[in-house]
Amino acid sequence: MLRLSIRRASTTTLTPKMFALKNNSLSTATEQSLRHSDPPKVPNLIGGSFLNSQSSEFIDVINPATQQVVSQIPLTKDEEFKAAVSAAKQAFPSWRNTPITTRQRVMLKLQELIRRDMDKLAMNITTEQGKTLKDAQGDVFRGLEVVEHASGMASLQMGEFASNVSHGIDTYSIREPLGVCAGICPFNFPAMIPLWMFPVAVTCGNTFVLKPSEKDPGASMMLAELAMEAGLPSGVLNIVHGTHDIVNAICDDEDIKAISFVGSNTAGMHIYARASAKGKRVQSNMGAKNHGIVMPDASVDATLNALVAAGFGAAGQRCMALSTVVFVGDATEWKNELVKRAKSLKVNAGTEPDADLGPVISKQAKDRVCRLIQSGVENGAKLLLDGRDIVVPGYEQGNFVGPTILSGVTEDMECYKEEIFGPVLLCMQADSLEEAINIVNRNK
Amino acid sequence: MLRLSIRRASTTTLTPKMFALKNNSLSTATEQSLRHSDPPKVPNLIGGSFLNSQSSEFIDVINPATQQVVSQIPLTKDEEFKAAVSAAKQAFPSWRNTPITTRQRVMLKLQELIRRDMDKLAMNITTEQGKTLKDAQGDVFRGLEVVEHASGMASLQMGEFASNVSHGIDTYSIREPLGVCAGICPFNFPAMIPLWMFPVAVTCGNTFVLKPSEKDPGASMMLAELAMEAGLPSGVLNIVHGTHDIVNAICDDEDIKAISFVGSNTAGMHIYARASAKGKRVQSNMGAKNHGIVMPDASVDATLNALVAAGFGAAGQRCMALSTVVFVGDATEWKNELVKRAKSLKVNAGTEPDADLGPVISKQAKDRVCRLIQSGVENGAKLLLDGRDIVVPGYEQGNFVGPTILSGVTEDMECYKEEIFGPVLLCMQADSLEEAINIVNRNK
Amino acid sequence: MLRLSIRRASTTTLTPKMFALKNNSLSTATEQSLRHSDPPKVPNLIGGSFLNSQSSEFIDVINPATQQVVSQIPLTKDEEFKAAVSAAKQAFPSWRNTPITTRQRVMLKLQELIRRDMDKLAMNITTEQGKTLKDAQGDVFRGLEVVEHASGMASLQMGEFASNVSHGIDTYSIREPLGVCAGICPFNFPAMIPLWMFPVAVTCGNTFVLKPSEKDPGASMMLAELAMEAGLPSGVLNIVHGTHDIVNAICDDEDIKAISFVGSNTAGMHIYARASAKGKRVQSNMGAKNHGIVMPDASVDATLNALVAAGFGAAGQRCMALSTVVFVGDATEWKNELVKRAKSLKVNAGTEPDADLGPVISKQAKDRVCRLIQSGVENGAKLLLDGRDIVVPGYEQGNFVGPTILSGVTEDMECYKEEIFGPVLLCMQADSLEEAINIVNRNK
Amino acid sequence: MLRLSIRRASTTTLTPKMFALKNNSLSTATEQSLRHSDPPKVPNLIGGSFLNSQSSEFIDVINPATQQVVSQIPLTKDEEFKAAVSAAKQAFPSWRNTPITTRQRVMLKLQELIRRDMDKLAMNITTEQGKTLKDAQGDVFRGLEVVEHASGMASLQMGEFASNVSHGIDTYSIREPLGVCAGICPFNFPAMIPLWMFPVAVTCGNTFVLKPSEKDPGASMMLAELAMEAGLPSGVLNIVHGTHDIVNAICDDEDIKAISFVGSNTAGMHIYARASAKGKRVQSNMGAKNHGIVMPDASVDATLNALVAAGFGAAGQRCMALSTVVFVGDATEWKNELVKRAKSLKVNAGTEPDADLGPVISKQAKDRVCRLIQSGVENGAKLLLDGRDIVVPGYEQGNFVGPTILSGVTEDMECYKEEIFGPVLLCMQADSLEEAINIVNRNK
Repeated sequence: MLRLSIRRASTTTLTPKMFALKNNSLSTATEQSLRHSDPPKVPNLIGGSFLNSQSSEFIDVINPATQQVVSQIPLTKDEEFKAAVSAAKQAFPSWRNTPITTRQRVMLKLQELIRRDMDKLAMNITTEQGKTLKDAQGDVFRGLEVVEHASGMASLQMGEFASNVSHGIDTYSIREPLGVCAGICPFNFPAMIPLWMFPVAVTCGNTFVLKPSEKDPGASMMLAELAMEAGLPSGVLNIVHGTHDIVNAICDDEDIKAISFVGSNTAGMHIYARASAKGKRVQSNMGAKNHGIVMPDASVDATLNALVAAGFGAAGQRCMALSTVVFVGDATEWKNELVKRAKSLKVNAGTEPDADLGPVISKQAKDRVCRLIQSGVENGAKLLLDGRDIVVPGYEQGNFVGPTILSGVTEDMECYKEEIFGPVLLCMQADSLEEAINIVNRNK
Repeated sequence: MLRLSIRRASTTTLTPKMFALKNNSLSTATEQSLRHSDPPKVPNLIGGSFLNSQSSEFIDVINPATQQVVSQIPLTKDEEFKAAVSAAKQAFPSWRNTPITTRQRVMLKLQELIRRDMDKLAMNITTEQGKTLKDAQGDVFRGLEVVEHASGMASLQMGEFASNVSHGIDTYSIREPLGVCAGICPFNFPAMIPLWMFPVAVTCGNTFVLKPSEKDPGASMMLAELAMEAGLPSGVLNIVHGTHDIVNAICDDEDIKAISFVGSNTAGMHIYARASAKGKRVQSNMGAKNHGIVMPDASVDATLNALVAAGFGAAGQRCMALSTVVFVGDATEWKNELVKRAKSLKVNAGTEPDADLGPVISKQAKDRVCRLIQSGVENGAKLLLDGRDIVVPGYEQGNFVGPTILSGVTEDMECYKEEIFGPVLLCMQADSLEEAINIVNRNK
Repeated sequence: MLRLSIRRASTTTLTPKMFALKNNSLSTATEQSLRHSDPPKVPNLIGGSFLNSQSSEFIDVINPATQQVVSQIPLTKDEEFKAAVSAAKQAFPSWRNTPITTRQRVMLKLQELIRRDMDKLAMNITTEQGKTLKDAQGDVFRGLEVVEHASGMASLQMGEFASNVSHGIDTYSIREPLGVCAGICPFNFPAMIPLWMFPVAVTCGNTFVLKPSEKDPGASMMLAELAMEAGLPSGVLNIVHGTHDIVNAICDDEDIKAISFVGSNTAGMHIYARASAKGKRVQSNMGAKNHGIVMPDASVDATLNALVAAGFGAAGQRCMALSTVVFVGDATEWKNELVKRAKSLKVNAGTEPDADLGPVISKQAKDRVCRLIQSGVENGAKLLLDGRDIVVPGYEQGNFVGPTILSGVTEDMECYKEEIFGPVLLCMQADSLEEAINIVNRNK
Repeated sequence: MLRLSIRRASTTTLTPKMFALKNNSLSTATEQSLRHSDPPKVPNLIGGSFLNSQSSEFIDVINPATQQVVSQIPLTKDEEFKAAVSAAKQAFPSWRNTPITTRQRVMLKLQELIRRDMDKLAMNITTEQGKTLKDAQGDVFRGLEVVEHASGMASLQMGEFASNVSHGIDTYSIREPLGVCAGICPFNFPAMIPLWMFPVAVTCGNTFVLKPSEKDPGASMMLAELAMEAGLPSGVLNIVHGTHDIVNAICDDEDIKAISFVGSNTAGMHIYARASAKGKRVQSNMGAKNHGIVMPDASVDATLNALVAAGFGAAGQRCMALSTVVFVGDATEWKNELVKRAKSLKVNAGTEPDADLGPVISKQAKDRVCRLIQSGVENGAKLLLDGRDIVVPGYEQGNFVGPTILSGVTEDMECYKEEIFGPVLLCMQADSLEEAINIVNRNK
């Protein structure tokens, strides 16, 4: 198990090199001593330096399969946040004037380095987020594809040229970087989503301030190190840790020109409104309640496999997870077989080779999932499979929820109206395709 | 019936205005006298003037439903051809330097004028080419869509602009016109295909020499008049008539930079090779033997309607016509119903309101179609429906072939290997989709 | 002088046809009677019907050259506004499913109709806004170019298609309309800016609610009529009149998905924040203080002509007007010649053939311009040319300001920090190009 | 000095791995023995195997600075050529169906490997082609940029998608690979031009047959090894050696769908015509006579530096080399300074660190350059600087030509009409910019 291993060193500046070194080569003895003393503190990245926060408040990063404290992130102080934005602002003029070909080459190198460290990244994700190693590899890989895409930015950023649109007048357009941009990340894809954000932004010539999820910041830290190893200049990518206060500070800061957010609806709408009020451009990617419609003439085998994968994969903690299936006509009879296949999934710590599903992210998340299942039962839904009381040997403290299937769900139930974000599949019934489509379209 | 009505006036220059006038407003008396004297001669369009050719050789343009001579086209003399190219070459520098917005506005006007004269254009097509008025309207309409498209050329012709690709270096691309371009047209779509060619070419800033089909030049002449009415400057579009010699002259001319051709395989391969040898860019759109595969679980009604329309529409004289259908498994039994529907199609002169199919283009074409049907029969194919001996009352001289269906066709038959280009549908049989696909892919 | 001539007819629905008719063919007698009775009221356009507002509050539309009341716009009632949005919402499903080619053809027709009515549109603009007829033609023409552009929307709205991105997976993107969009227009370009907005929006498949400037709504009304004559279905374009309350209603309405605004900084920032807080997409095009830098080796003649045109054209009421010129080194000596040329400009009502400059939009605007000139003088700038006291014979009541030139302007002066939006050119001085560029970049 | 070191092993198949190994790790003893025995033979690459040709005819690859035989290329036998095309044809179906993302990743790896082996590639180029090591690095680098570009092919190869263009009809376009493509390379950029050709072609899904220049095949061989190390499947890239016969075989082969050629006008026109006659797509990039115009108010220093670099860089053996300069007015007096700067250039073997110019490619090339200089002198041009008799110590056998400047050149001289392709700058004179531009435009 990889662990971040920065010692509490109040004002020491760790260069990326140092950071990387310590990260990889601490002796077992040191690791032991660290384990028994304070958990390591995750530094901010400001102007090219990994700096421990001066804050007195820290939050634990917890392994959801074991409840072990993996590390601690600071509630970054306002002056530290300002320093990060300032570093990004200072880095902008020279970075935007760096030829696009040079900027691309940093990405060409970064994709090579991410491939090299794929296993380390995946192990960190499993440790902090809980998903299986295979899912964690997929998490990195989906992000890696964006780095590859950013490697071809010169073509994508080209403007247009029209000659002689009027006598003696040529016109052209240039796609220019905006300046300092910021990204606010959710916990469910700790590598993919940071990699959606900063590679494209910086290759376009912007500089960046990234706020990883406070629940699993490790992958962002490792990716930032790799970016710097790949040649990204100091100040182009900065990282600050924290929760609501940092999010608000990002929304309000005059020097930040644009924000990319992925996460819950509540947070997304807050950020869109608050940051727009300051004249920012905001991209807010929020939650969804994805439905599948199953027709009676579909291929049984392919359909059930797809439902099981989409409904329970990554413990249902994906914005693209399938949370609701509407069976049309006789297809409803496939539910027994669906339960059978769901039962066969192995719930275990993500590090275990046989795991199909890992734990959900936190005790709170598990409690919420269980509460919504219970409310479904109380509202009249039928519990075909109940994963709430699962115990995983060796990981008795983990936030595990087994695959759960509720049938007879109706549109008025709370379990249907809320996004559950856990391995719970709701089954509904419709007489015709039209009725099924209407159900889907009535959902917000 | 509209008819071109240029009197034989050896050296008179007809301005477009005059031409249009005569075309539309000749008194019945004059029409009568023309009908009994020589048929009108179709002029060339050179440098903005409609000029009768000095040639001593002319070819009749014949109404395929009546055998009436509609007009005559000249075998244009070499010096006349050279004058047309020279006019296009002279017009090029000023036209290419005309702002793209101005060039677009000619197309914006042209689309308006084509709509205005839609009925006249369709009537001319039916008269010279034979297809029904509805098909003739479709012929114009498909070309009109290209004129509309050319109206937005400024967006389509934009190059790309990349700033600061290396320190202090911006790069951009410009899409430039080539110079004099030429188009060589087939008889089957006398409005659509000229409109595929010159509107895009000239709006891009090229100048053009068009050779219409010698069988139905009327639509091209009317379109050229409309283009000039729309504001296309003299010399930007030129028209020359003729046959092989003109085609070869186009291939060989040093001042023509690019050729667009639509027509038969033989001509297309000749033109591609001959013009390329002179360093030209050549676009050669040739024939095809289109197959349809019918699976037994397809919708019977929709499938048969589609087969009848694709197989017999426009008397099969479309490069996209469906000439062969491969029935898989039990679908083969639908043939009886197919015959029934094909039988119900009304064969008549295109000007008659009840016509579903008009005549084929010429006596030669009819003979060739009949010969290929006969060879199929002799090679063992079964003639489910025979349209060879059809007689259309009032149009007994017309080149009519009724819908014809041959079944049991095999890959070695001549009727299968040759493009028939008539209302003949060949039926084949396969046991599986794979076998059907293999048949299609084995065809050249 | 063209005038809107809708009689006060409390609940009469005027069809577009009727509206157009009355607009054009009232007898002089009727016009006289209208002139002596109430000014005409401008109707809203809701769901395809021109409807007079039930509001009890109206605002005068005033001819800035004569102070004559041209018409009155209503402060539209909230239920009328809601009816307009509702009409747009209802029209959306069928309009978005109308093929893009059909939608384009409405624009192809609209551009033809705008050309036809160019003179009428220009006369209306001059009457309500004050600019010269030539500038008014330019106003329409710049908008017409956008309609032409929208005629090629099919190419511009295409998504991308990538086949086999992974085994058996094709991906494609579709550019979809958003739903109901809204536009909020300024007074300075009463034809161009509405034409920036609704043609692109509706051709993409959106439906639209337009709020014209309360100072010159006439061009918008005429354009809406033309759009309907061109075939735009009822409800696709709607118009509501009013001031702040309507703007806020647009910002807050749940059914409006996006807003396009052009106007002042204050309004723009308010709208961006307020509408974004409701999750809308907002495009806010605001003011600017444009500078020109003049080098001593520039061509004197071309430079001075450009300065005079850019500084005083359209009475300086353009967001792209040049309000400040920085002379580098000896170029400062050209000021005398600049004054001479500015003096030669003829200030007159826009309808007069010799007018180079018309009046500014309102008495308030004139007062503001004069106050800012005065503050410049008081802060130490030198008044090289003073246009404040100009009197135009026959138009003594007009809001005229003649070309005005202040030199020795410095960065701390109020006249420099505020956007003057009148025919006032500020002259500054720099020793070098670098210094001049620094001045420009220091300006907000 | 790197040397290819394939022993004469008539039928041995060398795998890429073996080839690479031998290439890099032969002991000094072996090298000595090879040097004294036969020069190594360059194998073809067919279907993933490096195969020595069975041909009895070989051509020497000669180091132009020393006349040493570096290696020998075979005049590949027809059946070997056919085997290469056949391998490419067989590899096509599976390679075209390989996801574009996978194909891109081969390029992402290839760019990494080319960077790794940059020095080795440059040394090979200097050895076989003669240019300086710095120029050789540039040669590789310009090609490397194309590999980087090909790494983003997924974006570039996307088609377009238009939904609902007519009721219920979506349309999309796919950019498909053609099949087997071929490239024919010149000697002057032995890395850059092969890298223009095969990376783009294969990443698009085509398979490839490359014919390197017979004068410097080494870089192509090394690049092919790297491509296979990067994961390019067997048969996707094939290499055949030879001269005219292979070129003609490529033109005529039925299975080759497209040809890319870079080289002389004579060869280019021949290939364009011959391959087009077989229906192929041909891209023929040929020679040019590039002119520079120098105005008297240009910056003297920057201009002369640019002239010297463009005229004599890479010994003038670039299609973009500047061979003619037209001085306008007084600028003609700069010639003395031009001569001074040209004289200061150091002519030496490319491997020597102080070399500014290396030798020209062959004795024949040197003879031709000298002959054209002499003809200029005889036609009345003035020889301001004569590089013909240069002797380079230690490389007395090299094909060296020093910088040469002829002034008073006129349009009728042979040295002006022919492309010299050596370090020779022709000076002309014009009275005005217009005259200078006319001179340039009169040149073919």
